[in-house]
Order: sequence, then C-alpha cells, then structure tokens
Amino acid sequence: MMLLLSSLRRSHRRLLHLHRQSHNLFSASTSPPLQFPLNHPIYMIWGSNTSLGKTLVSTGLASSFLLSPPPATNTTNTTKRRKFLYLKPVQTGFPSDSDSHFVFSKLSSLASRYNPPFSLLASNSVLKSSLSAAKSFGGCFETNEFKYGMYNLNFNEKKKVLRDEAGVSELICETLYAWKEAVSPHLAAERENGVVEDSAVMEMLEQCLSNELKFEGENETMDAFCVVETAGGVASPGPSGTLQCDLYRPFRFPGVLVGDGRLGGISGTISAYESLKLRGYDIVAVVFEDHGLVNEVPLLSYLQNRVPVVLLPPVPQDMSNDLVEWFGSSSEPFNSLQGILLSAFSERLRRLKEMPKKATDVFWWPFTQHKLVPEETVTVIDSRCGENFAVYKAQNKDFITEQFDACASWWTQGPNATLQIELARDMGYAAGRFGHVMFPENVYEPALKCAELLLEGVGKGWASRTYFSDNGSTAIEIALKMAFRKFSIDNGIFLDCAKSNLADRQIELRVLALKGSYHGDTLGAMEAQAPSSYTGFLQQPWYTGRGLFLDPPTVFMCNSKWNLSLPDWLHYENVTNNDMVFSSRDEIFEKIRDKSDLYRIYSSYITHQLSQYPGAEGTVHIGALIIEPVIQGAGGMLMIDPLFQRALVNECRRRNIPIIFDEVFTGFWRLGAESAAKLLGCIPDIACYAKLMTGGLIPLAATLATEEVFNSFIGDSKLKALLHGHSYTAHAMGCSAAVKSIKWFKDPRTNLNVIAEQRLLRELWDAELTQQISSRPSVQRVVALGTLFALELQAEGSNAGYASLYARSLLQKLREDGVYMRPLGNVIYLICGPCTSPEICRQLLIKLHARLEEFNQAKEQQASC
Amino acid sequence: MMLLLSSLRRSHRRLLHLHRQSHNLFSASTSPPLQFPLNHPIYMIWGSNTSLGKTLVSTGLASSFLLSPPPATNTTNTTKRRKFLYLKPVQTGFPSDSDSHFVFSKLSSLASRYNPPFSLLASNSVLKSSLSAAKSFGGCFETNEFKYGMYNLNFNEKKKVLRDEAGVSELICETLYAWKEAVSPHLAAERENGVVEDSAVMEMLEQCLSNELKFEGENETMDAFCVVETAGGVASPGPSGTLQCDLYRPFRFPGVLVGDGRLGGISGTISAYESLKLRGYDIVAVVFEDHGLVNEVPLLSYLQNRVPVVLLPPVPQDMSNDLVEWFGSSSEPFNSLQGILLSAFSERLRRLKEMPKKATDVFWWPFTQHKLVPEETVTVIDSRCGENFAVYKAQNKDFITEQFDACASWWTQGPNATLQIELARDMGYAAGRFGHVMFPENVYEPALKCAELLLEGVGKGWASRTYFSDNGSTAIEIALKMAFRKFSIDNGIFLDCAKSNLADRQIELRVLALKGSYHGDTLGAMEAQAPSSYTGFLQQPWYTGRGLFLDPPTVFMCNSKWNLSLPDWLHYENVTNNDMVFSSRDEIFEKIRDKSDLYRIYSSYITHQLSQYPGAEGTVHIGALIIEPVIQGAGGMLMIDPLFQRALVNECRRRNIPIIFDEVFTGFWRLGAESAAKLLGCIPDIACYAKLMTGGLIPLAATLATEEVFNSFIGDSKLKALLHGHSYTAHAMGCSAAVKSIKWFKDPRTNLNVIAEQRLLRELWDAELTQQISSRPSVQRVVALGTLFALELQAEGSNAGYASLYARSLLQKLREDGVYMRPLGNVIYLICGPCTSPEICRQLLIKLHARLEEFNQAKEQQASC
Repeated sequence: MMLLLSSLRRSHRRLLHLHRQSHNLFSASTSPPLQFPLNHPIYMIWGSNTSLGKTLVSTGLASSFLLSPPPATNTTNTTKRRKFLYLKPVQTGFPSDSDSHFVFSKLSSLASRYNPPFSLLASNSVLKSSLSAAKSFGGCFETNEFKYGMYNLNFNEKKKVLRDEAGVSELICETLYAWKEAVSPHLAAERENGVVEDSAVMEMLEQCLSNELKFEGENETMDAFCVVETAGGVASPGPSGTLQCDLYRPFRFPGVLVGDGRLGGISGTISAYESLKLRGYDIVAVVFEDHGLVNEVPLLSYLQNRVPVVLLPPVPQDMSNDLVEWFGSSSEPFNSLQGILLSAFSERLRRLKEMPKKATDVFWWPFTQHKLVPEETVTVIDSRCGENFAVYKAQNKDFITEQFDACASWWTQGPNATLQIELARDMGYAAGRFGHVMFPENVYEPALKCAELLLEGVGKGWASRTYFSDNGSTAIEIALKMAFRKFSIDNGIFLDCAKSNLADRQIELRVLALKGSYHGDTLGAMEAQAPSSYTGFLQQPWYTGRGLFLDPPTVFMCNSKWNLSLPDWLHYENVTNNDMVFSSRDEIFEKIRDKSDLYRIYSSYITHQLSQYPGAEGTVHIGALIIEPVIQGAGGMLMIDPLFQRALVNECRRRNIPIIFDEVFTGFWRLGAESAAKLLGCIPDIACYAKLMTGGLIPLAATLATEEVFNSFIGDSKLKALLHGHSYTAHAMGCSAAVKSIKWFKDPRTNLNVIAEQRLLRELWDAELTQQISSRPSVQRVVALGTLFALELQAEGSNAGYASLYARSLLQKLREDGVYMRPLGNVIYLICGPCTSPEICRQLLIKLHARLEEFNQAKEQQASC
Repeated sequence: MMLLLSSLRRSHRRLLHLHRQSHNLFSASTSPPLQFPLNHPIYMIWGSNTSLGKTLVSTGLASSFLLSPPPATNTTNTTKRRKFLYLKPVQTGFPSDSDSHFVFSKLSSLASRYNPPFSLLASNSVLKSSLSAAKSFGGCFETNEFKYGMYNLNFNEKKKVLRDEAGVSELICETLYAWKEAVSPHLAAERENGVVEDSAVMEMLEQCLSNELKFEGENETMDAFCVVETAGGVASPGPSGTLQCDLYRPFRFPGVLVGDGRLGGISGTISAYESLKLRGYDIVAVVFEDHGLVNEVPLLSYLQNRVPVVLLPPVPQDMSNDLVEWFGSSSEPFNSLQGILLSAFSERLRRLKEMPKKATDVFWWPFTQHKLVPEETVTVIDSRCGENFAVYKAQNKDFITEQFDACASWWTQGPNATLQIELARDMGYAAGRFGHVMFPENVYEPALKCAELLLEGVGKGWASRTYFSDNGSTAIEIALKMAFRKFSIDNGIFLDCAKSNLADRQIELRVLALKGSYHGDTLGAMEAQAPSSYTGFLQQPWYTGRGLFLDPPTVFMCNSKWNLSLPDWLHYENVTNNDMVFSSRDEIFEKIRDKSDLYRIYSSYITHQLSQYPGAEGTVHIGALIIEPVIQGAGGMLMIDPLFQRALVNECRRRNIPIIFDEVFTGFWRLGAESAAKLLGCIPDIACYAKLMTGGLIPLAATLATEEVFNSFIGDSKLKALLHGHSYTAHAMGCSAAVKSIKWFKDPRTNLNVIAEQRLLRELWDAELTQQISSRPSVQRVVALGTLFALELQAEGSNAGYASLYARSLLQKLREDGVYMRPLGNVIYLICGPCTSPEICRQLLIKLHARLEEFNQAKEQQASC
C-alpha cells in the first residue's frame, strides 16, 4: 500500500524534469518573446477546490459585462463594441462537460429572455481534443491513422440574439484542449494518449488572446473583457502534470479566487489563496456561494479587508428553471465583482504607467548617471519567472513582454522557474519558522546546514570554518582582516602591535593583487584594488590603494582562436609562439603548462616584484595575496591566464603569505565548476562567496578559512576575536536559500546541466556560434566559460572603457528581441543560470550574432561617411 | 450581498487584535516560560479539508502503537509500559461527535477482538464544554448561574481489556474543549457563548502534555506517543477565530497531513501543505484514503519524494462491521506511518543533540572569542514565534522552552507572531513574483513603494532620494561619499581634484564625530569612529581614524532621577545644578533648553574645536558631521544629551558641513518615534537606515539624501555618478519586507502601541520598576527609551568595558527565566519590538529586577569575604 517504490519515484522524477524544462519554452523558440496585451482586462478564474462554481462566476461576469444597457455612444457617434472572451484552456469530461458551451448557451438564453432581448453574437469553439473525446463528440472523423496526441477538432457553434444592429455585444467562448474522462487533466491526458506540453498550452493561449484582443484600429472602440478559467483547484495538475498555478505563471494574470462557503471551506479557501500568493499571483477578489456559515467573516479578517469578498446566493438544487432566477438574483454581486475587477485593472495600469516617472523622481540608482537615464528608458519590471523578466512596455499600446535577464540580475541570478517556486516556498517557511535569529554563540538549522554544505563543497579539502556576512564587500573586508592577522602572528608582528596606539603603528600591511581586479565597494575592499575609474578622489576620497598591483597576462578568443595576451613587462621574444595560441579552451587550464618556460618567466617576474617591493624600508609587508580566480568581473570580464594565477599562488605559498580567493562572482558554477579554484587547480587559505550562493535571491556572503587562519584569533580575551559582524549575519532566510540552491545546482537530478562524473557543467554556449561571433570585425575578444559569454567591442578613445556609451544602440535592439543586457562600457555580456538549457543559450547567441551584424554594418557605414 | 460593510470590517479588525495579542500569552504570564518535553514523539494531525479521516489516522496510529506484540523486556527485567496519548483540543458537534470517544471505543473494541485479547487500559475524558453541549450531554448540572464561558464537564470513562498484568498498554484520550453545534469552532463558540482565548487552549494543551508525558523516574521505562488532532482543515478557525495553524504555532509540533484522495484532492492537499510550510511547520508524512485516482503520483512529484506519502484503503460506505476489517487491512500502512514518525522523531532529536558540537566545529561566529564558548553554552534555536525563541535544552531530559529574544536578534527584530506570518506570506509572494531583479535603471513595485514610504516617513520634510544598499555599514560608506562630494562641490575642491592622481591628493577630508560612536564594521565606516576596542591594529590594521572626535555629555537615570553627565572638557562651575538633573525624560528633549547657558557653552566649545582643527595646514577639512542621534548603540547604549547634538547640527549647518544621521539602530521606532531625528528635533542632509527597516527579517539598508546632495552627482559623465552599489541593491524581498513593516509599525490598527496623534509609541517600560532598578546599588545607570531598556552594571577594572564577562552569571539566570539577553561588556539591555505589549515588558523588568537583587547579594557577599 505504501508508495515508496523507488521505480515509481524515478519515473516521476524524469517526468518532472520534462515539465520543468518546458517552463522555459518562450525562450526556447526562435519566435518573438512571449507577450500579451494590457489594453483590456484579463483575469484568471481559480477555484479553491473543484465544483465550486468557477463557470457560474465566469457566466455571471459575462452576463454583467454584456447584458447591461448598451454603452453610451461617444462623441464621434461610433458605437463601442463590447466583447467578452471566455477561454477554457483545459477541459476534461468532454463533451458531456463543456464549460465553454455552458457559458455560451447560458448567455444566449439569458440574452433572449430579456424583453426586449439583448443583442448578442455568441460563439463557442473547441479547438483540440483527445481522440476518445473527439469520437464521443460524434460525427465522422478521419481518425484511423491518428493514435497519439491531440486531434484538431475545430468545432464551432454560433448563436445570434438580435434587437438592432447597433450596439451588438459579442461573446467568444473557446475551449483549447479537451479530454473525455472526467478526471484530473494529467490523468485524462495520459489515459487518452493525449499529453500536451505546457508550451503548447501557453502558446495557444497567447495566440487566442492576441487574436481576440489584438491592437487594431477598429478595435480602438472595443470594450473587451477576458476570463481564463482553470480546471479543478489552483494546484490541480494540468495536462502535462505541471500544477496549473505553475503552468500559467509566466502570464501572471491577476485572478479571482472562487472560494468555498461550506463547512471546512474557510481553510481550503485560505490555503488556495496562499498557494497563489506563493507563486506571485495577485488575487483581486474572493467570491463564493453562501451556505449560511458566514465563512466571509473569518475570510475578511484573514485578508485584513485588503481583498474584497463577494457572496453569491445559494445555487438551487433544482436546476429546472435553468438558473435564470439565480442569475437574476446574483446580478448585484456580479456587478460588484465586475466593478472590482475593472477598477483593479485600471489601477494596475495607472501604476505601471506612472512608475518610470516616479522612479526617476525618488530613486538614486547606483552606478547610474541619472542625467543619462530619461524616464522613457526606464525598464518597468512587473515580475520575473525563472530566467525571464516580464517587462511592461507602452509603445503605442500597453503590453507585457518577456526579456531574458542576461545580466543575470547583475551577476547573481540562478533559478529557473521550478527552482524559483521551490525557493519561494522555502523563503515562506524560513520566515515562518525563524524570521531572523541572532547568530553569535547560537546555532539553528539553516545556518548549520549552509556552513556544512559550504565546507563539503567549495571549501572541500582546505576550509574548516565559515564566517557569514552580508555581501561580497563585507566578505572581502573580513578576509583581509583574517589574512593580516594570520600574517602578523606568523611574522611576530602581532606581539609588537597588539597594544600599540596609532602613533606607534610602524608596520604597514599591504596586499599583492592584480590590475583590473575589483573586490567590492566599501573602502577596505577598494583599498585592495589598483587605481581605476572607481577609485579617484571624486568617488573615493579616502582611497589610497594599499597594494602591489601587477599587470596580468590574459586569454580570450579572437577569430575563432584562444589567444594569450601579454602585458608590457613580459618581453615577447622570451615567449614561443606555441605559448601564445591554444588549440582549445581546455588547454589553457592544463596542468602541464606548469612545466613550461612561460611558467618560469611568470614565477621569476613575481619573485622579482616581491623582492623589490616596497624598497628599503622594512616596515611595509605584503600581508595577503588577493585574486579573483580565472575571471575578473567588474574589471571587464577579463580572463586571466590561469598559469599566471597558479604561479602567484605558488610563490605566495612559498613565502607564507595568506592567499585569498575572491569567488564572489566566480563561485557556484558561474564559470562551469562549483568554484573557480577547481578550474585553477589551486587552493586558497581564505575564500569569499556571495551572489549565486543564495541562488541569486537575497544577499548573503561567506568567508571560508582554514583552521590555521581561525586559530590566529583564539586567545583568552574577547579583544583577540574577530570583531566584525553585521546584524543579519547568517540570517535564516539567506542560509535557507543557500542550502536549497547549493544542493539544487550540483544535483544532476535537478540541474540537467551537471555532468556528474566531472563535476562540471556541460558546455552551454554553442561552439560554432561562439567562433563566428569572435570573428566579427566589430568584436575584439570573446570569453565564453560556464554561464558567462562576454565580448569586448572594438572601440577607441571615449568609446572604450567603463564610461563608454558605445554599446547602447546594440543593447537597445537586443531588448526588442527579448534579451535584457547591461554593458560594462564597451564590454557586453550574456550570463545565464547554472540550470539554463544550452538551447536557450543558443537562441541568445543567434540573436546577439544577428544584432552584431547590424551594428557592424552601421559602424562601417558611419566610417565610410 | 457584498460584504463591504465598513462596520463589519471594523468590528472584525478589533476581534483580530484581540487574537493577536493573545499570541504573546506565554510571556504575559508570570509563570515559567512555555515548554514541552522531547522525550516522546508528539505529532499534530492536520487535515487538508474537513471529514477526510483525521480521526481514522489517529486511531490507526494508536492501534499500531498499542496493539502490537508486547515490547521485549529489557535486561533489568522491568517491563516497558506503552502509552498512547490522543488529544483533541477542540471538538464541535459534541456529544454526538466526539473524536476522543471514537478513538477510545474503537481501540477498546479492536483490543478485545484479538485472540487472546491485547491488554489495554483505555480512558476518555472531556474536560470543558459549552453549556449547550453540557446540557445535551445529559445528567444533572448546576448550570443555573452559568451563562458565559466554558463549563467544567470533567467527564471521564474507562475500559479495561486484560490478558495479564504484565505489559499493559495504556490509551489516554482527552477532549479539551467541546461545543454542541457541528460548525466551525469559532462559530460554535460564539453562538454558544463559549469563546475560549487562545492562551487557554495552549495552556491546557501544555498541561495535558506535561501531565501525561512527565519526566519522572518511573516513566523512564515508558514508551509514549502523542497525537494532537486538529479540527477541520489546517486553516480552519479555532474557538477564538485565530486560524488553527496560527493558534498552535508556538509549539511547532511536527505534523502528519491527512490529504484528499478524491477529484480535486491533489490541489487541496498541496495548498494545505503550503499553508503549513508557510508557518514554519515540518510535515513528516502525507496520508490519504485511496479513491483510485492515483493522486499519490502528482503529490510525490510535487513533494520531490522528500515527504513520504501513505495510502489508506478505501473506507467502506457500509460501517456495519464497525470498520474492524478496514483497520485490519490498514495495518500495513499504519505501521509504515508509525515507522516514519518514529524515525523522524529520533532523527530530529539526534540533529538537535549534535548541533552544539557541530556549531563549535564549523562556525566562526562574529564578535565571539571561541575559546570562551564551550559546546554546552551554545544556544540551539529550533524556531522563533514573534518575539520568542523556541530553544532546545538537554538538561537531564530533552525539552523545548521559550525565551524572549531580548537582544532583539541583535537589534533588528520587530515582528510579533501576527506580523511574522504576514511577512512570511509576503516573502513567499516576493520570491514567487520577483525573485531578485537588478535595480539600476529599472523600477519594480516593492522598490518603488519602499522608496516612497521612506521619503514620506523618516525622510519627510527633507529627503528626496533613496539609495539602497545591504546593511548599516554600506549605508554609512555611501553617506560619507555623498557628504564629501557635496562638501567638495560647495567648496570648490571638486574641480581641482577631479582628475588628480594619488600623488596630487592635497586635500584630506575628515568627519566630525563623537567618541563612543559606532557606524559599522567595514573600513570606511570604521574610519568615521574614534579609536576604541574595535579599532586597534589587532582588529583593523588599516584603521587611522579620520575625524575630529568630541567627547559628548550624556544623560541617564540613576537613583530614580535623570541626570546629566559632563565630559572633562566642560568645567562644572559653568553649569548650574538646574541643568544637571531633570524632572522627567521628556524635559531632556525640550526645545526650551536651546535658550539655556548650557547650550551656549556647548556651542562655543564646538566652534572652538572646529576652528582649532587640524591646525595650520589648510588641506584638511571637516567634510561631514556624522552622529547616531540620541543613542549610541554599540558604544554601550549611551544616551547623548540631545541638546549637545542639536548644537552640533546647528554649528555644522551654519558652516555648510553636510550632516549625516546614522539611524541604523535608532530608526523605525527603536526609540519610540519613527526616527530619532524627530526626538532630536533636527533634520539631516543624509541619513542611514537598516535593521528594523525590514521588520528585522532580512538585510536591507537605505541612505536617504536631499536633492542638493543628489545634484552634486549629476553631470554628463557616468564617472560623476555615485559608483557604489551591491548586486542585491533594492532586492525585491527586502523591499517587500520593509513595505509591510514600515506600514505595520506606524498604523494604530496593527500596532496597538502607536499613539496616533503624537506619532509616538506609548511608554513600554513600567515607570516604577524602572526607577526601582535604577536605584539598585549594582546599577550604575539606566536608559529606558522606546523599545530599549539598558543598564550599566557598577563595575571596575577588567569587569568594565566591552571585553568584560562581568554580567555573565546574571544573564545565565535570566535565560533560565525565559529571557535571552546578550551583554555589551558590563552593559546589559532588553530590547523589545515596536508592537510588544507593555505587559510583556513589565514581566521582563520584574524578572530582571529579581535577578539583579540576587546578583547584588552575591557581589556583596563576595566583597565581604
């Protein structure tokens, strides 16, 4: 009886993956991004259980909307048409049950019973059905050859109720997919060999909406209203098995929840409401049939009166009078409901419209010259689903369109749609269970589990302690304090200075670091980077740059080949051609290069620099090495020759200089391995993580350290402890998000990109397209590694560098294609999540490639003028 | 028909408040803190709807547990007793429905049908009922005088099924509260004049558990198992109207969810599961009656196979054979379920036990000398509910006990239990709708709403821009950059230095600040504070202290009087006695003091200091004033004379030195007003907020600034923009939490402490107790203001200061009383939330007062020895 059969589990896990992948459908097609109009209200009708009267509510709304006195004619004397669109994407029990037919026939009959009757053009269509449903539907079908999938039923029925030609109201009812058995859609679909992918449902729904609510001149004077009625309860599976609340999530239409007025109905209604909220839906009203149990009182109390509750009169058991009386007595609540929905719709639109102006009035965006951001360029993000933003646009008409978040919400983003809802549930749970609890001297599950996962994962083989903080900058400041303490103890500095006051501070500690590095924006983190656009007096009046900053060799792809680029200090004659070009990216990382002449050149340069620095005075010490392994992010997505970084690590290890890896950007699969240290083939003494650690959801950082580093803070006095902490250190929500994400990303069952044996992500960026792009004349270099695809545009003078606006027109075009990118001056990049499918990445590259061609041509034209 | 009646709304809001307050019941009584044993498993039985067979599941578990072969005798030949405790806290439809009677009679009958019969002692009690239920129950009651409330029914029935005397199993069934009508408990309670407060239900439940599962020697050999069966669905209202999932939350017993195997049941089961998770419950198994719809398949897929699903055979419609056959055929699933519950219980206990050791192995706590934190002093926090931790303890026996979080989770915590669940829902929604989306050049609702609320609230009258960051430290670093830029532009420094390289940096900017101030742990924030325990080379090798740091006058209560304490620089003869003592705390803040001699003394001192600093060189400028208004937190909860801070602000304003208020600790009602600036009666140019801003849930910070400050960053180049930002800047989750909390705290409908007219919190700390405490000889000073109650213990030498362990024994005792505090050396404090009731605060003071007495006596004894 017990369902613990592992084979069952496995098969369903596979099924689950199938469904998950299909969430990304919009980006997977080469068609334009998903989009839907905002010119007319579209509402989902949800039920907190099955058989609570969703269709009665749809019918009542249709009746309210269509069967009221004709709208006043406007000044130009053209009549405003009214159109009610009823969509039932998924219908089971067909044809005996057909909700679209019910709405169609009920409205026709209600219209004709008025005296005089209301003018109404009504139609009902059923587009596709399973074979069994089609057969039951009768008629003659050529179904001999047809065994699997859905049959094109294309059934249509029409009725006209006419009083006069003017002011005709129109009712369009459509069932998109129908199955015969009156069971849950996933079961009917399976039993009737008529499984439909989520993508198909969503595309057909999008198509119906666009056809019926389309932006056309003649529709300017159309008043339309659309409801999309779900099947069963909010979390009933759709035809593929995906829960309907997940299936329809990319649209995130606002909803009406049909609740339950019976005994036990308060609970079911509240729970259904919470399931919808957890997925980011807005519920505009709750409506239910009155059973005399005053369920509305606790419901209103629960909803804090923020969501109106509408009561419907009891539905008669005796249906003989065709519910005409019932609809009559329900006209008041349905009119109220319609009013609520219309005003919520216009309120939403008003807010969306005013947002850009308000944003430019009250925000102070970081890294943004406000003078360069006019109101009309502000992006209004209505929501996100997995890797995609839903963006509000107001070009001619209002609509919502999808854009792939290729800036990975500024380098943090990781979840696909499935992980997002998992995280949402976990966030609710963490807040409900812990809220926030203080960390020092305490332990609680999410913090402990997170620390354990970090030490077993990115810290494996070297780290034994986890120090939590809030973001990359703070993690770096902590790392520096750790390294300096360790260095001081090792070098006997500690004893001299422990009690010293400022005047006695003879010793000065500095870092060894690379030019182009970036470790965060707080002063301590800034001090560890070389002078740059970010460090001038204008930005950082207190910056001095406390380090020895070396110019590193870099690698990149150009004209389809991976090349080495050497800094000025390295005389080319010493380097063989063999060392300058790589046959593949893998070759760059190969350990065998440690035996090369180049390695010896690197090492001796580093040795020379360290011995020369800072000159004769003995009071200045290099107390730490700090590097971003493999990729320098903010510096311009530069890939540093890993051989050089290995040489740095080895030389510092030899001198007992603590080694800090800044993996804030590179950690957690950003570069295709759980840590960039793994790619480099070295271990640090201290490493910093943030960004993707929480799946890209909320701020949390960790500084990992070896037991030796930890021990340099042990003593009898609290004053010897590391006195750096933030109030939310190891906050339960962040740790919970990290626990889920760290596990999710590395598990081949949840992340199909993980190649389990190699502990690497499969290649996400199409090799051929990458080479093609790297060969465009407008492209100076390409770096494709893990989830990162970066390229530097060929640019000179003020077109190059961080402040450049050179890429702007290119990125504008890509946004129209549904790709949201943000430049680093003339460097642009696509970043996907660790779970993003290679197919989606390929689509991004195709779009980028096409727009680069245009860009190139435009630049060439400009040049020739 | 529509329920928009505002009077109804109002009355229910009041009702709601009543319920909310009662959540805090455990702290409101003088009795010991809530606690329950962990020596035996206790499970909640939840239903995803009513009538799904919760009681069948309870009965099945009882049968599995009691009616299996007697346990093997142990080595000492004593028999292990088995006891199954079935508790039904809330029963409606009584006496015709009585689930405890059902379990009682069914078990007795099952036991006797075995051959030979199982030995069983069974009892069933009904403790309290409404009068109507009592009357229906029959018998002779003295009910004439009894009209309202609950009647002490104290009904008890017993049965014995005996085979032999050894190995007797015991079944205890108890109904705690019963009502007659078969409707939702809140409705029955209301209709039968038998409303029961949440606190009463919880206390009686605690009592029953403690009686039956008590830690006694003889019970050492008892095997017990307890289920607490809820009424209706998970979110069905309890007798007071509080949803049951909220009512029982302080216990957070793990649960079994009885799901729904019918059509539509997948959705209801998933939604109920999500409602429980949202409240921080752990659901260990889902069990439901099989209706042949294979609902288990989508459920297992949804649960990702992490929660086992158990199927029960269909319950026969024909009950004539008394379900004996059904229980027979269900023994396998019930045994499995029991196994799952027992192993989850021991797994939970194992994890709780190992947590302190693991924590000391893998954590590196901030501000913690690990050598001083042995494993046994680590606090294991199992959860929090509102202001209280649920702490796991293993003294002799394992149990969970409640501790009031008086360190306010390190100065951030704000929500009571009601706000916590509201925030949990909002966090789920924000994650589901937005996850995280990048901020620069974008707008999304939570960020916009949060910025608007900040500008209308704490920024009202001065601020026009919101700059988001992650925590107090980063907010301060941003504020400094803002102030210095403004100062530079105003003073023509900008033009000289814009393009300057390091060598050219002639100009040095410093801050004017107060000794004892603390602005955060990153280097930039540290540089703005005076040298302290936190700034030595040992901690901050890069610290130099870039400021003019003044020693401020402070105020505090001592011997029941508010006194002024002057720093050395101020000659006492200049100050009248009148100025040294205040008749009340309000007097300290009075604006009339601006006319006093003292104000002139303060002003001229400040003027003198500014004119003398830093001597002859003209390159060093005071570019900003930075203060924590009213209270210096980390510096030791020092209350600075507001008159002195006003003088500072006025003098700097006169000199066009930008003024920064660090309201990270003081903001959002911490001190009884939404901002401390309001108490001070001054406005800044820039102010920083964090901690309580999100209700104390997750990290988020904001730096607010005037339009003039903002304008000093406007120009043609991006390089003139403020280039400081963190990846999660303005993250949707943080902004959503802030939006909810900012509104909640200031609204008198949700925060009963708010005095609407005055925009102040009512006095939370009992005046008499405060005076008494301030008069203890062991107490040097007291500061009670808003949500803060701080006191400094009289201490000398190494007993004083940040590293002191002087308060340790005192705080240990208070933890035993259920009060969790953390010292700042010899300064200890209680911090409550903005919504905490004065009664709870009074209880805290009573406990503190009593323990101070003990502490005092112990110190006196030590001294006399």
